[in-house]
Amino acid sequence: MAPSSSPIATVAAASDPQGRDSLGAALADRPLPGFRLTLDAPLQLDSGGSLAPVTVAYQTYGTLNAARSNAVLVCHALTGDQFVAEASPITGKPGWWEGMVGPGLPIDTNRFFVICVNVLGGCIGTTGPRDVDPRTGKPYGLSFPVITVGDMVRSQRALIDHLGIDQLFCVIGGSMGGMQVLQWAAMYPDRVFCAVPIAAAVRHSAQNIAFHEVGRQAIMADPEWCGGDYLAQGRQPSRGLSVARMTAHITYLSEQALHRKFGRNLQDRERLTFGFDADFQVESYLRYQGRTFVDRFDANSYLYITRAMDYFDLARDFGSVSAAFKGTRTRFCVVSFTSDWLFPTRESRAIVQALNAVAANVSFVELVSDKGHDAFLLDEPEFLAVMRGFIDGCAEHRGLARA
Amino acid sequence: MAPSSSPIATVAAASDPQGRDSLGAALADRPLPGFRLTLDAPLQLDSGGSLAPVTVAYQTYGTLNAARSNAVLVCHALTGDQFVAEASPITGKPGWWEGMVGPGLPIDTNRFFVICVNVLGGCIGTTGPRDVDPRTGKPYGLSFPVITVGDMVRSQRALIDHLGIDQLFCVIGGSMGGMQVLQWAAMYPDRVFCAVPIAAAVRHSAQNIAFHEVGRQAIMADPEWCGGDYLAQGRQPSRGLSVARMTAHITYLSEQALHRKFGRNLQDRERLTFGFDADFQVESYLRYQGRTFVDRFDANSYLYITRAMDYFDLARDFGSVSAAFKGTRTRFCVVSFTSDWLFPTRESRAIVQALNAVAANVSFVELVSDKGHDAFLLDEPEFLAVMRGFIDGCAEHRGLARA
Repeated sequence: MAPSSSPIATVAAASDPQGRDSLGAALADRPLPGFRLTLDAPLQLDSGGSLAPVTVAYQTYGTLNAARSNAVLVCHALTGDQFVAEASPITGKPGWWEGMVGPGLPIDTNRFFVICVNVLGGCIGTTGPRDVDPRTGKPYGLSFPVITVGDMVRSQRALIDHLGIDQLFCVIGGSMGGMQVLQWAAMYPDRVFCAVPIAAAVRHSAQNIAFHEVGRQAIMADPEWCGGDYLAQGRQPSRGLSVARMTAHITYLSEQALHRKFGRNLQDRERLTFGFDADFQVESYLRYQGRTFVDRFDANSYLYITRAMDYFDLARDFGSVSAAFKGTRTRFCVVSFTSDWLFPTRESRAIVQALNAVAANVSFVELVSDKGHDAFLLDEPEFLAVMRGFIDGCAEHRGLARA
Repeated sequence: MAPSSSPIATVAAASDPQGRDSLGAALADRPLPGFRLTLDAPLQLDSGGSLAPVTVAYQTYGTLNAARSNAVLVCHALTGDQFVAEASPITGKPGWWEGMVGPGLPIDTNRFFVICVNVLGGCIGTTGPRDVDPRTGKPYGLSFPVITVGDMVRSQRALIDHLGIDQLFCVIGGSMGGMQVLQWAAMYPDRVFCAVPIAAAVRHSAQNIAFHEVGRQAIMADPEWCGGDYLAQGRQPSRGLSVARMTAHITYLSEQALHRKFGRNLQDRERLTFGFDADFQVESYLRYQGRTFVDRFDANSYLYITRAMDYFDLARDFGSVSAAFKGTRTRFCVVSFTSDWLFPTRESRAIVQALNAVAANVSFVELVSDKGHDAFLLDEPEFLAVMRGFIDGCAEHRGLARA
């Protein structure tokens, strides 16, 4: 079944008089693959306000079955997008979960109908701060409302309603994607048959808030940020956003991974230069990460989405974490990685303990990996095997036909 | 015995036409307590060049005995200074090791003659990039040579020579201070009776280089940095330096310490504001750390000193870490803290293993603390007790009289 929303969407370029908005340039007048749905009603927000219009950009893979029972919602992380299993139209690089989603893969697109939605506040088609505020005719910038993971999930639910899906077979995602998984299971328990929060937590830790705050300060310290009004002024806080990305990138890897990858190897030189060029490969790598990020991400989106993660706290919203899941019939598989220090295993254990306290159906796997938080994005064989096992097992319980 | 160098030094303020150089303002025309020595000869640098003139600012506590055998050299960390055991003349805050150094304390100033030197490249009296280059009459800025931990130690040795001290009883320090300790023991083994590298390493790890690189990029991304020429232009890269400090500060604490201190507590408010103000105490705390740092530290010094740490690598300089200590008669006490993730215990173990490989006299203590890397600056009772035990034991071997 093809969804009824527009099959091809074009993301309008923001005003770009000086050619500085690389993201705008990348998207301008180029068809964005996938679909867009503009919601019928204003989206009610956790902040108390509402937002309209809201457009939700999403991508799908596979076919929805007649019973509409084989849908898998994949939730992306902070800087992810809806292009799970195909090249990004922005960067041309492979989809971010091509090892997980596809024909014959753990999330088998021959069997499942896979949906991935660009999050609310994002910059790849779904309404966010770089979009034009219809009240002013200018990009929202900082007048965009602060949104939450709950708001993201609420916008996704509107899409799932629109697609006529009563219950998602599975909601799965890592990092902020895992937060969305937990939020889905807490807010709409009857609409989630099974849930896989990976490398996630029931609330953002003080240390993680701190790292996000550094990133935000780096962006807001850049004079080109212009108080958030850089798009209207044809400017771009590239240097601030780049520093924010560099900081974050370190937290996505493990010390061991950085050591194995780079150690103290020098970059294209035999000896130290006694200067401030990138002598070490790790410096060069980080600078590259920062530089390329600004071409694919919007600085204000970065502010809004990191804020949403910081605000995430199931205990605050539901009274306690267990209360969030009381009476749930969803089957959970909680996954962590040994070398992940951003969302360490103890955070996943807290999810499991809360689920156990309400006698939920939960399995928990801590996978041995030295690749840090980003392990969930990589083709780790044991991880893929665990995912395949859990998803196949749940599909059998759900009575879904084999591919 | 009073050292013969000038007892009171005045740090000249850099040109400050717009009043933006807060560090300059703090130091301007105010007597800097302690001593300054201008070296007789140009300082030979690891980069191959030399530097002249070099002034070394230092502070002392206690009295040098007639045999000149009771001197303890305390080496400070990245942003430390020579004011170990007295209020900082810049900030008015207590000395950074007042729990360790003083009458009756582990480094007992009734018994020992304590020397602490502002490192080469620093900004509290010792020659660094904010000083005036005599060739141009302007602050060095980026024309200051890139220096190493070896260069720092070489400048300290010139001071120790000047003070007529053949052998230091003890060289002790944490973090970059610990690197200086190791460098002293490696370069001048006969001049160090005992050595205490705390929370240190034999080389800076890829992850630590990465964090430093983020800090440097934050500074250099600030347009007020002016290519390093901000002092001459009466400007100051406060925002960049502040972001650099915020990032670094996170690495000095443990996740547990941040959680215990702040958790997700809100700052002077009862609920989330749904904005980008500092909702969380940890955000407010970090912003404060960044803001106050720029009043006491020079941005270019930050670049040079982080670079020196990145370059630190005993194996590169001596062929192997063991080779650096071959034949040493120095007694070592290597100390690490369980929750230190910047210089984790495995880094200290690498020091110990190298020392064991050359049959050195070494003891090793891993202290249980949840306070992270900064534990070495705090009054941790077990740490203080271990230090007292080692130092007293060595003093007995050295035949030093009790206080």
